[in-house]
Amino acid sequence: MGDARLTVRVDFGSKRVLGPGKIRLLEAIRKTGSISQAGRSLDMSYRRAWLLVDDLNRSFREPVVTKQPGGANGGGAALTDFGIELIEKYRSIETRAAAAAKRQLHELEISLRDRSRRAQKPQRISSRTAKTG
Amino acid sequence: MGDARLTVRVDFGSKRVLGPGKIRLLEAIRKTGSISQAGRSLDMSYRRAWLLVDDLNRSFREPVVTKQPGGANGGGAALTDFGIELIEKYRSIETRAAAAAKRQLHELEISLRDRSRRAQKPQRISSRTAKTG
Repeated sequence: MGDARLTVRVDFGSKRVLGPGKIRLLEAIRKTGSISQAGRSLDMSYRRAWLLVDDLNRSFREPVVTKQPGGANGGGAALTDFGIELIEKYRSIETRAAAAAKRQLHELEISLRDRSRRAQKPQRISSRTAKTG
Repeated sequence: MGDARLTVRVDFGSKRVLGPGKIRLLEAIRKTGSISQAGRSLDMSYRRAWLLVDDLNRSFREPVVTKQPGGANGGGAALTDFGIELIEKYRSIETRAAAAAKRQLHELEISLRDRSRRAQKPQRISSRTAKTG
């Protein structure tokens, strides 16, 4: 196999989405025990990280992250059992999806242009047309 | 089954990505026979649509879209056989992925908060903390 990587996103309707960004954030919170540190490790503002966690906590019947009060940095944060389960379920969907589509992913890979040849004479549409509008 | 919907994205490395946006654009070009009309039908500028098509044409060994010259609107556009195959392959990956993860998707669905209950008392982190960061 080459390096084609499948990423999945789950849309639940009413704008609720679970994708790689939120899962990476949960994994970082599990690792660092802090929303702000987790956000920082992903080049994400604290506000954005907090909004994503809040969105997750509102999406499901059970909270995903709990916050411990206190401290100058607003205290620590921990995943709930449900939050850990959510990561595992998402990663399992991803693994199963990649396994089920292995042949198709491989076929896509072999139809890719070689990187080394990209700079030479890429097949392209006339650039004049791009200015037309 | 409820309405959880799986979307897939394929990363090939070196910034080459195939996801739902490009596939929807190809499907719209197949339908309309025009990059500009296809872009418009997806609320996308002609420039953005053109860049996505150009990116696809450069990513693979074979072109995905060919352009017919002439006309005030810059002529028509058509998918190549390879372009049609690309749509089919992507949609097949999506279908196989959803089938393989059916149980996990269902489990996520039943752990969702009811929409009707969302407005009442969503479990949330203290909003005071949000201003801290």
